[in-house]
Amino acid sequence: MTSTTASSGPADPRFFTRSGPFDGQALAEAAGATLVPPREGSLPAEGYAGIAPLQVAGAQHVSFLDNRRYAHLLEGTKAGLVIVAPAFADKVPAHSAALVSSTPYLAWSRVARLFHPKAPAQPGIHPLAVVDASAVVDPSAEIGPFVVVGARAEIGPRCIINSHAVVGEGVVLAADCRIGCHVTLSHATLGERVIILPGVRIGQDGFGFAVGPNGFETVPQLGQVVLEHDVEIGANTTIDRGSVNDTVIGAGSRLDNLVQIGHNARLGRCCIVVSQAGISGSTVLEDYVTVAAQAGLIGHIRIGAKARIGAQCGVMSDVEGGADVIGSPAMPFREFFRNVAVLRKLSKKASGPAEGGSGKG
Amino acid sequence: MTSTTASSGPADPRFFTRSGPFDGQALAEAAGATLVPPREGSLPAEGYAGIAPLQVAGAQHVSFLDNRRYAHLLEGTKAGLVIVAPAFADKVPAHSAALVSSTPYLAWSRVARLFHPKAPAQPGIHPLAVVDASAVVDPSAEIGPFVVVGARAEIGPRCIINSHAVVGEGVVLAADCRIGCHVTLSHATLGERVIILPGVRIGQDGFGFAVGPNGFETVPQLGQVVLEHDVEIGANTTIDRGSVNDTVIGAGSRLDNLVQIGHNARLGRCCIVVSQAGISGSTVLEDYVTVAAQAGLIGHIRIGAKARIGAQCGVMSDVEGGADVIGSPAMPFREFFRNVAVLRKLSKKASGPAEGGSGKG
Amino acid sequence: MTSTTASSGPADPRFFTRSGPFDGQALAEAAGATLVPPREGSLPAEGYAGIAPLQVAGAQHVSFLDNRRYAHLLEGTKAGLVIVAPAFADKVPAHSAALVSSTPYLAWSRVARLFHPKAPAQPGIHPLAVVDASAVVDPSAEIGPFVVVGARAEIGPRCIINSHAVVGEGVVLAADCRIGCHVTLSHATLGERVIILPGVRIGQDGFGFAVGPNGFETVPQLGQVVLEHDVEIGANTTIDRGSVNDTVIGAGSRLDNLVQIGHNARLGRCCIVVSQAGISGSTVLEDYVTVAAQAGLIGHIRIGAKARIGAQCGVMSDVEGGADVIGSPAMPFREFFRNVAVLRKLSKKASGPAEGGSGKG
Repeated sequence: MTSTTASSGPADPRFFTRSGPFDGQALAEAAGATLVPPREGSLPAEGYAGIAPLQVAGAQHVSFLDNRRYAHLLEGTKAGLVIVAPAFADKVPAHSAALVSSTPYLAWSRVARLFHPKAPAQPGIHPLAVVDASAVVDPSAEIGPFVVVGARAEIGPRCIINSHAVVGEGVVLAADCRIGCHVTLSHATLGERVIILPGVRIGQDGFGFAVGPNGFETVPQLGQVVLEHDVEIGANTTIDRGSVNDTVIGAGSRLDNLVQIGHNARLGRCCIVVSQAGISGSTVLEDYVTVAAQAGLIGHIRIGAKARIGAQCGVMSDVEGGADVIGSPAMPFREFFRNVAVLRKLSKKASGPAEGGSGKG
Repeated sequence: MTSTTASSGPADPRFFTRSGPFDGQALAEAAGATLVPPREGSLPAEGYAGIAPLQVAGAQHVSFLDNRRYAHLLEGTKAGLVIVAPAFADKVPAHSAALVSSTPYLAWSRVARLFHPKAPAQPGIHPLAVVDASAVVDPSAEIGPFVVVGARAEIGPRCIINSHAVVGEGVVLAADCRIGCHVTLSHATLGERVIILPGVRIGQDGFGFAVGPNGFETVPQLGQVVLEHDVEIGANTTIDRGSVNDTVIGAGSRLDNLVQIGHNARLGRCCIVVSQAGISGSTVLEDYVTVAAQAGLIGHIRIGAKARIGAQCGVMSDVEGGADVIGSPAMPFREFFRNVAVLRKLSKKASGPAEGGSGKG
Repeated sequence: MTSTTASSGPADPRFFTRSGPFDGQALAEAAGATLVPPREGSLPAEGYAGIAPLQVAGAQHVSFLDNRRYAHLLEGTKAGLVIVAPAFADKVPAHSAALVSSTPYLAWSRVARLFHPKAPAQPGIHPLAVVDASAVVDPSAEIGPFVVVGARAEIGPRCIINSHAVVGEGVVLAADCRIGCHVTLSHATLGERVIILPGVRIGQDGFGFAVGPNGFETVPQLGQVVLEHDVEIGANTTIDRGSVNDTVIGAGSRLDNLVQIGHNARLGRCCIVVSQAGISGSTVLEDYVTVAAQAGLIGHIRIGAKARIGAQCGVMSDVEGGADVIGSPAMPFREFFRNVAVLRKLSKKASGPAEGGSGKG
């Protein structure tokens, strides 16, 4: 990396605003963690100014250890305060205070958010936005430049619609949604606090056609897309609207980038779909299902609650709740890796004599 | 799903306009189907008002049965008119009329389109569009807000260019094309009735470079993209222009969302490419080829007419016309599933004694 | 293909500007190749007017032979000048001059660029762009219509920002970058000559969340994206910013369309990532790594320099420098294809007797 592109560390002020300082007690409350003063010295009267990784943090910084593979960094850190799990509490250096939490990653997340809160909506409609006269935009919402809001659309309190986004005719957004740049929303209803990253396409025609005498004929797609409360959608992901019923993403679910959701698919609560995975039309995911990266699910199947679909998995039939599957076609994790081992063994055996040349047997 | 996000059924008037009512004979003609009056009662003088699924339809609705897995719903429906295949004609309730068709899904598609026609172009150029003085825009075309039309571009009769789309220099659109929001068209020629969903990228540089003394050097990409009549392209799909020859998508072909088409690829007529599939540079698909979701085709190969490439298939060499292949590397369907079965059997056998512990043999 | 959509050959003047003519010596210098006059006749005084494929080129055209599978076309070409490798120099027709180069594809690339140079920036800010008062835009840069440039952003000399692109707050572009239509740049630093094709998303939130008592809680993503000199990014690709450290794409690397790069990933110099491949968070690619189409790399692993990851490969652990791997899970090329052969053999054997029915043994 050249010096011109070197990073100035996390939370570069070019990009991130900063709150604080905060004292240890305030951070403990935000984190839901227990504050343990340093064994040597005392808590700084001026509080902590920001966050930093273990290796670069100083006395004014909060740092954290989440992954035990980085435990060796704990000993040498100069961080003034470290968030750790109970098992590591006594390994924090003597000069550092600790925030002890049984969920240190969650605690870290909340502390980082305290220092770097999301910018609130700046109410108002940019003069270069095009908002239909029949649309209802809450006065506390922020509408960026080059945004289009269609007829009868409704945009709730404190929503942020970033530049170039399109909110189509009749689309409804509840409070506190954040819509990224260049997003296209049509035929959709959004719950509260829905977050959509740039370039997402929601509500376009599903892939439905009948074979006619002169080629394919498009079947009208007459449903919509429903994104329930607290759904988050990654960049350039596509979600087609339903053909007769709706396409539904359940409350709290999170989709990563470049994911495809076919028409009439229904995801339950708190599902996770990782990047480049695809879920075909009319397939149902119950609650808390995880679909790993690049996995593909055929249409018209049902995935039981808390099932986990592995990366690149090809799922051609129903999966029971709680199951762990991988492979294409999908099978239980254990079976997949046993198959891999067996085939490797057979393959070595087969090639061994052939290459070795003994030829016997 | 919370009550705030519950759907009001298909064809919600928030999103869809409605035509009608239509009487049974008009619907039969549109559908190319045979009208069978109800066994009890008579055809309603006022006609039918709209469409609905079997479970919720009333006397004023048209419904349909296409998939035999839903045949049990037919008996209890209250729909005034049901579209069915001949085999189900006598299972339609006595109070319902029937539209009998050997292609009920196609018939349904046409009836649904009659009730919910596509909105026609609203001629005119939005005052916030930027149209080059040398571009030729037919007066019947609709140009939305924030659209850019480049020098010497030509936009045919009744085309609809939705907001934020870019029609690059010299790009030509024949009549009745519909270009979605945020689409980028460059170096391209479109036939009639081409439909492009939001976020599609057409005509950008292909992935071509030579190794030079100081790194890679881009090879100029001097072809274009040709989309023939009636092509439809799904959201966020990418089609690179040719390097020397053109990239061509044949008449009537349909691409789903997030598909990648490399430079110089040529698809024949009525090909289907499902979501997240990728076709590498210079590969040729003859007519009526189907490529299922997440399949990948290497470059410089030829896929024969009517071949079907299965989901997640990895195709490294030519495929004969009419063949069904799947797996990575691709093989005939039958061989693939036989391999899966054989490996499972070997794997169980191998693990059995080891786990069982007899150790003999 | 209908006649209305037939191509007029490479470098259609609808789309491409043309320089020239150039004489043989100028082309030889640009190409770093040796000029060999025709065995019959002499070099044309007027030079050469353009480029064309072997099959259609005339006396005024430069053509090339790179791929030996097209060697049979050399004999019959009418091209005035042909770029060839030394092994083919004596197969050039007597009436044609030759440019002989040990890297004919690179030579071709440079000749084609000479005839069809990239259009330079047209300095100025379009009146329908929205540029923050605190942004610094070099007077030689071109800012297209509907572009948004955020607070404190910096745009270097001769950069081209195409229509609808968004350059977020604090984003810095060094000289000679070209940003495609509808690109979203946020939390990012770009080196010189970075090229980004349409629809790319750079710098958005990574996919990071902790499990809280009421569902997932987003972990603040406080890093940025660094694109070093000469990086090129394909259409609709997504690169998330780092969570604590940065996401880095090394100098000269090239990413194709629809690629996903997770937060904190680090690519070295001159890496190649082909379309629809995905690299998960915190994974490191050393220099000159190639990742083929639709491959997927799990997070937190390291790929050694010059390793090659095959198409659709699923990489779950570190890969040594220089290794060639393929399959899911990844294994050496040789092992993968041996496994395929062994399984095919076992499968045929298993099915043979079963179908034949002898049942013995």
